[in-house]
Amino acid sequence: MTPSGTDTRVQEFVGGLVATFEQFSDAQPLVQCITNGVVMNFTANALLAAGAAPSMVDIPTEAGAFAAVADALLINLGTPHEEQRAAAVEAARAAGRSMTPWVLDPVAIGALEVRTQLAHDLVALRPTAIRGNASEIRVLAGVGSGGRGVESTDSVADTRDEAERLARKIGAIVAVSGKEDLITDGRTSVLVAAGSEMLTTVTGAGCTLGALVAALCAPVEADSRLAAVAAAHLGYGIAAERAAEDAPGPGSFAVRLIDELSRLRPEDLRAPERLTITQAGE
Amino acid sequence: MTPSGTDTRVQEFVGGLVATFEQFSDAQPLVQCITNGVVMNFTANALLAAGAAPSMVDIPTEAGAFAAVADALLINLGTPHEEQRAAAVEAARAAGRSMTPWVLDPVAIGALEVRTQLAHDLVALRPTAIRGNASEIRVLAGVGSGGRGVESTDSVADTRDEAERLARKIGAIVAVSGKEDLITDGRTSVLVAAGSEMLTTVTGAGCTLGALVAALCAPVEADSRLAAVAAAHLGYGIAAERAAEDAPGPGSFAVRLIDELSRLRPEDLRAPERLTITQAGE
Amino acid sequence: MTPSGTDTRVQEFVGGLVATFEQFSDAQPLVQCITNGVVMNFTANALLAAGAAPSMVDIPTEAGAFAAVADALLINLGTPHEEQRAAAVEAARAAGRSMTPWVLDPVAIGALEVRTQLAHDLVALRPTAIRGNASEIRVLAGVGSGGRGVESTDSVADTRDEAERLARKIGAIVAVSGKEDLITDGRTSVLVAAGSEMLTTVTGAGCTLGALVAALCAPVEADSRLAAVAAAHLGYGIAAERAAEDAPGPGSFAVRLIDELSRLRPEDLRAPERLTITQAGE
Repeated sequence: MTPSGTDTRVQEFVGGLVATFEQFSDAQPLVQCITNGVVMNFTANALLAAGAAPSMVDIPTEAGAFAAVADALLINLGTPHEEQRAAAVEAARAAGRSMTPWVLDPVAIGALEVRTQLAHDLVALRPTAIRGNASEIRVLAGVGSGGRGVESTDSVADTRDEAERLARKIGAIVAVSGKEDLITDGRTSVLVAAGSEMLTTVTGAGCTLGALVAALCAPVEADSRLAAVAAAHLGYGIAAERAAEDAPGPGSFAVRLIDELSRLRPEDLRAPERLTITQAGE
Repeated sequence: MTPSGTDTRVQEFVGGLVATFEQFSDAQPLVQCITNGVVMNFTANALLAAGAAPSMVDIPTEAGAFAAVADALLINLGTPHEEQRAAAVEAARAAGRSMTPWVLDPVAIGALEVRTQLAHDLVALRPTAIRGNASEIRVLAGVGSGGRGVESTDSVADTRDEAERLARKIGAIVAVSGKEDLITDGRTSVLVAAGSEMLTTVTGAGCTLGALVAALCAPVEADSRLAAVAAAHLGYGIAAERAAEDAPGPGSFAVRLIDELSRLRPEDLRAPERLTITQAGE
Repeated sequence: MTPSGTDTRVQEFVGGLVATFEQFSDAQPLVQCITNGVVMNFTANALLAAGAAPSMVDIPTEAGAFAAVADALLINLGTPHEEQRAAAVEAARAAGRSMTPWVLDPVAIGALEVRTQLAHDLVALRPTAIRGNASEIRVLAGVGSGGRGVESTDSVADTRDEAERLARKIGAIVAVSGKEDLITDGRTSVLVAAGSEMLTTVTGAGCTLGALVAALCAPVEADSRLAAVAAAHLGYGIAAERAAEDAPGPGSFAVRLIDELSRLRPEDLRAPERLTITQAGE
């Protein structure tokens, strides 16, 4: 990878990235979340703060009908109870038919059978984007056995090839969260350097980022999705850094993260020095 | 409507309203909540802060037994999973038999079939009060098709006639939340001017108000319920205004709202200038 | 009971107690929580702040498999939906086979039939520790009929004999939470004087303590479990006192409690003056 920051490719990419955040801010998209019970509240508040309209419609019959009218859909497998599993499949199918962009967050897959099978079934329904940690993405790519509970035991850098291959195979944006985040469409890969160690002290910080990825994908065309997913990661990371500045602890940090998300403006994302862009095979 | 504030009718009403908050503070009522997973935690903390004892008993068999001994019951349809739906009907029936006051919050009804049918079934069981936004109340009144997810696309003012008719038809207090809130028993209607725009940035702010409505109804006689429901709205609105004062963002606002609810005293509600009272047909 | 504080027995016990907290901090144990929807988020954040790795795996098939590899397991009966009940029994069995320490928190048992029966079934599977309020422990001991919703109507002092008998009968540590907390293995009983009245204003404060009990039991040998459970209570109580110091209300207190848990160090627990130790029959 070329450590860059000011080259033309990055400058152009940043322009598109800022544009996707503007589109998102203007659209105030309706984002359906089928997500786990641990993070429902935090995720909804983060979406509201960022400017989206969350709706946690997650029961069979309703989930599919809603996915057809929502602007985007998140499916997160953190606590996949029976009704949620049926709702997830139904919503993914409806989203596919209605061209609603949808994001899969395959929480803690690997050793846990129910969600691992469900994740593979959902990947076959062709999500617009997948967001996970390195261990989760490796399981989807068929090369890993999962992490330690919800934590990754693999590194982002070691997962680049698998993420790119997975992205090409299913035609999705694949995002790998870690100290730096990797976002790829299988040809172009973006490394985003933003965020705070304190994110690891808040439950569902990654799950909430997945919801933001869905929200950013809502209003953009297919060829802007790489930029949109990168914008979600960069914006969330910048908000996290600001929130961490004087936070006396993880409880305060979580509250301030919501505050900072509400203050995030498109221009805050014009930060080429935080991006490294490479082409697959480089 | 007569814009009033100091007329005798308002002065008298305010006295009764303050009295219902005193009764509530003395009673520390046990409030059963069958509510959605997004807001369970915030709702329970808000009830505790205000001085009630929340209990989220929401499974079949237990829900009915508990409704018979609880001081009040909230049924909120935000994420109506199968067991919760059965628990809701069972609890509403038990509440009816035991004269436990109960409140229906028909979240996002309209286009979503499961909860819309359930809401109509529950209305037939005669709730003590119904709290919703304008779009939700219009659906119950048979004249609307719902809002945008959990958001209202109709205005409170345009919903007054429907709310009054619904209240008369089922013999319940009907409360319509919006920039100003309308509370009616079908004959007398009270417009409450309190609250903060920031409430729209916190998930479940309306759902939590529904729980507070149940709590305020717990200790009062039937003829004080209009005042009790108005007290819940006025108290919540005043707490929200105070919380919003220096809040740097929606995360901090939510925390301070809980703090302010714990500081609310009956006398804070002696605010006739915030109320407009009209009779149906005026 | 001998009001003590500096006698040899207490000094020795405190040394062991501090050691268990050091073991916990070093181990960063993976703690599986099958817990209620109201407190999932707060519990996970509290565990993360204290230094554990929470994982809310609570569906059948996965729950048992995970209990076999987790370092500890909490089973909390606050909202025992059908899948959670099956997951709880499955996980308790797997924990027993794998020697994973596990904690039962029998929330609001007594009048509520489903959870009361489940609690008795789980006790028969021999939990490592049980944590509850006085009313809940009395129900398990066969002498009480439960409290008022989630609140206790019995006192810790009046429950000492029952707690000791229950501990001996099933070979578990039994912890009774109240103004002071009683922790017993049936022979030695420890009274811990720590905590804040503000804990009663935050929903799930007790439930979260139950998760911390599981976390502290994770890395220690069987003969250090009394000290580990006491360490959880003392540490949580001290964090709560610090959080309460300038907290303007219960919303802020809950946030600060998380902050303070992240600052807790083993040496903070060297507080013999807060402990009273007695032998059964003394």
